[in-house]
Amino acid sequence: MSNLAQKAAENLQHIRETKPLIHNITNFVVMNYTANVLLAMGASPVMAHAVNEVEDMVTFAGALVLNIGTLTEEWVASMLVAGVRASALHKPIVLDPVGSGATSFRTAAAKAIIDKTTVSVIRGNASEILSLSRQKTMTKGVDTTNTVQDAAVIASQLAKELQTILAVTGPIDMVTDGSRTINIDNGHSLMPSVTGTGCSATAVIGAFTAVDSDYLSAAATGLAFFGLAGEMAGKTAKGPGTFMIHLLDALYTMTPEQLEKGCRIHER
Amino acid sequence: MSNLAQKAAENLQHIRETKPLIHNITNFVVMNYTANVLLAMGASPVMAHAVNEVEDMVTFAGALVLNIGTLTEEWVASMLVAGVRASALHKPIVLDPVGSGATSFRTAAAKAIIDKTTVSVIRGNASEILSLSRQKTMTKGVDTTNTVQDAAVIASQLAKELQTILAVTGPIDMVTDGSRTINIDNGHSLMPSVTGTGCSATAVIGAFTAVDSDYLSAAATGLAFFGLAGEMAGKTAKGPGTFMIHLLDALYTMTPEQLEKGCRIHER
Amino acid sequence: MSNLAQKAAENLQHIRETKPLIHNITNFVVMNYTANVLLAMGASPVMAHAVNEVEDMVTFAGALVLNIGTLTEEWVASMLVAGVRASALHKPIVLDPVGSGATSFRTAAAKAIIDKTTVSVIRGNASEILSLSRQKTMTKGVDTTNTVQDAAVIASQLAKELQTILAVTGPIDMVTDGSRTINIDNGHSLMPSVTGTGCSATAVIGAFTAVDSDYLSAAATGLAFFGLAGEMAGKTAKGPGTFMIHLLDALYTMTPEQLEKGCRIHER
Repeated sequence: MSNLAQKAAENLQHIRETKPLIHNITNFVVMNYTANVLLAMGASPVMAHAVNEVEDMVTFAGALVLNIGTLTEEWVASMLVAGVRASALHKPIVLDPVGSGATSFRTAAAKAIIDKTTVSVIRGNASEILSLSRQKTMTKGVDTTNTVQDAAVIASQLAKELQTILAVTGPIDMVTDGSRTINIDNGHSLMPSVTGTGCSATAVIGAFTAVDSDYLSAAATGLAFFGLAGEMAGKTAKGPGTFMIHLLDALYTMTPEQLEKGCRIHER
Repeated sequence: MSNLAQKAAENLQHIRETKPLIHNITNFVVMNYTANVLLAMGASPVMAHAVNEVEDMVTFAGALVLNIGTLTEEWVASMLVAGVRASALHKPIVLDPVGSGATSFRTAAAKAIIDKTTVSVIRGNASEILSLSRQKTMTKGVDTTNTVQDAAVIASQLAKELQTILAVTGPIDMVTDGSRTINIDNGHSLMPSVTGTGCSATAVIGAFTAVDSDYLSAAATGLAFFGLAGEMAGKTAKGPGTFMIHLLDALYTMTPEQLEKGCRIHER
Repeated sequence: MSNLAQKAAENLQHIRETKPLIHNITNFVVMNYTANVLLAMGASPVMAHAVNEVEDMVTFAGALVLNIGTLTEEWVASMLVAGVRASALHKPIVLDPVGSGATSFRTAAAKAIIDKTTVSVIRGNASEILSLSRQKTMTKGVDTTNTVQDAAVIASQLAKELQTILAVTGPIDMVTDGSRTINIDNGHSLMPSVTGTGCSATAVIGAFTAVDSDYLSAAATGLAFFGLAGEMAGKTAKGPGTFMIHLLDALYTMTPEQLEKGCRIHER
C-alpha cells in the first residue's frame, strides 16, 4: 500500500514540524512512559486530569487521549468533561478501554465515554474491544472464533455499531471503520513484556490524528510507526528493560524515509 | 539448602508457565517499575485501586499485593475492601508497610490491614517491620540491637505475635514464620540506589505466593530470585540507571537452572 | 566564578555525606524519575501527599519540593499545609510552577503557595515564571522581549516583587535574587526530550538548599551539577531513552572534583 506508506512518512514529518499538544487523561502506571514516547517522537504531551482545568487544557490540544486504567469515579467525570468539550471543538478523541470487560466498572466507564463524546478511534486488544458491544452475542462470538479472518468481520461490524474507528492490536494489528480494513504487520515480540506499550500506541495514534484528519489513515500509520520503532529497538535489546529504552531512542531517531521504507501496511 | 534452591527453580518455572495475575494496590512512585518487574519475570500485573472494582479484580488474581507508600484515606479503604475479599477467597496477601513508623498515619494503616485481613507475608526493612509490633519494648529493643543474630530473634518473636511471615530485607535478607528462619544472601549494592526495588521485591514475593502455597518458601525463593537478578544486572551496570534497566533484562532472561545454581538460601 | 565552582563541589560532597531527606509533593508523571534522580545523586527522597501526614513528614526533611503538575484541589490543600509547616520550621521550600499560565487553576495554585508560604526558590521556564507576576504588563512584556539581556532584567524585577529567588531554565539557565544574577551554561540538547528533567532540576535544587543556606548559591550550583550530568550522559546516549538512563548513572558517578572542573557558572 504505497499510498499509506507515503502518508505515514508525511504524518511523521508534520508531527516533527508542528509538535502538536496531546492532552492525556491516562492511568498512573503509564503516565511517565507515555509522556516520554510522545516527546521522543516529536509531539508535546500534557497530562492534566483536574475537573477544574481539563476544559481549558483541551482547547490548546491537537488531540485528546482518554485511557481508563487505574480508574476512579472522579477520573471518569473529568474524562467526560474533557471529552464533551473536545467533541464541541471537533478535536479528535482517542480512547483506550484498558481492562474493559474485566470489571463492570471499567466496561461502564468505556461505554459512557463512547455514548457522551465523539470518539474518533478506539485502540485495545480483542477482548477489550469486544466488551464494548451492546450485543451480547458478539462477546460470545469471540469465544468461538479463532481465525484472524473471523476477527476482522466481527471488528468491522462493531465499528459500524459504535460509529467509530477500531484499532485492534495483538500479534497482527488491524484498523477498521466498518467499510475499509487495514492490517499492520510491524511490531516486536518483546512489546507485551513492557507495561504501557499498548497505552503508548494509543497516544501515538492521538498524535497522528492531530495531523491527519483521515482518522483511519492516522490510526494505521501511527501503529506502523510505533511497531517499526519496536522492530528497531528489538535489534539491540537484551530483554524488556533495554527494549523499552531503545524504543524511545528509535521513536526519536527514525526518519520519515525509514518509516516509508519499513512500514508494512496492507489494505484488505 | 538444596531443597530450597530446587524449589526456587520450580516456582520460577511455574510462574513462566501459568502467568499468574498479581493484583497490586501500590504507590504512585513505583507502579510503573513494579508492573515491568512482574511482566519481565513472566507474571501478569494488574494495578487497580477504585473501591468500585477491587473486589471484582481480586477474584481473578493469584495474589494481592498491598503497598502503603503515597497513601491517602481512600486508598486505605480500598486496600481493606480488597484484602477482606482476598481473605475470604483464601488468596495470598503480601503487605509492604512502606514508611510505617515514620508517620502515625502510615503505622495505623499498616496495622489496620494486619488486623482486618489475613496477611500471608510482610516485606519491609527492619525499622518498618519493627514499627508493626504492639509491644512498645520491641521498637525500643531495636535501637540497642546491633547484631544480625539479635535481629533474627526479634523478627522471629514478632512473626509469632503477628501470626504471619516476615521478610526483613537489608544487607542480608531474612524470612521467618516464628519457627523457621531462612537467610538469603543474594543481592547487589546498587539496589538501594534505585527507587522501588524494595516494593518490587514485595511484588515478586506476591508472584511466588501465587504458585507456592508454602508462603515461607515462596518468600525466600522470591527474594533469592530478585537478588540474583540484581547480581546479574550489577555485572554490566555503570550506575543506578543502567542497573534498573539491566535488572528487568535479567528477570526476563534468567532460567530456572541459573536460579537453582545461583541462589544462596540458608536455613538457620 | 571559581568561588561558585568550589561551592558546587562542597555542596555535592555534603549531600553525599549527609543524605538529606527531600520531601516531594510532586506530579504523577515525574514521581518515579524524580525519586531516582535524588537517590542517584546521594539524597534521600520521600514522596508523601496525604494531608494526614505531610506535617509529620516535613519535620524530618532537609527541604520541601512543591510541584503543581497533575494538580487537583486536594493536592493544593496538602501543599499549603506542608508549606505552612515548613515555613514555620524555617526549612527551604522550592516551588516548580509546572504549567502556570496555561490554565487559571494552575496559576492560582502557584500564587497561593507563594502568598501563604516562604518559598525559597522558584524554578520554571520563562513563561511559567512570568505568569507569577501580579503586574499584567510583565506578562505582556515577555511577548515583545527577545534578548537574554532583557529576560534577565525582567527576572530580576520579578524576584524583587515576589521576594524570592528565581531559577529560569532554558537554553541558558539563569538564577537571580533581584540583586545578583548568575548564569549557568551547563546542559544538553536532549534534556527537553525527556519528561521530568525540569521537575528533576527543581528537586536537585531542593537537595542543594538542604546543605547550602545561601539559596542563590544552592540554586546555581544545583543547576550546574544537573546540567553537567546531562553533558556526561549526552556523550554516550543514542536518543532520549538512553539519555535519561545515562543521566542517572552520571548523577551517581560524578565526583565533586569533576563538578568543580566542569561547571560553567558566571555571575553577571
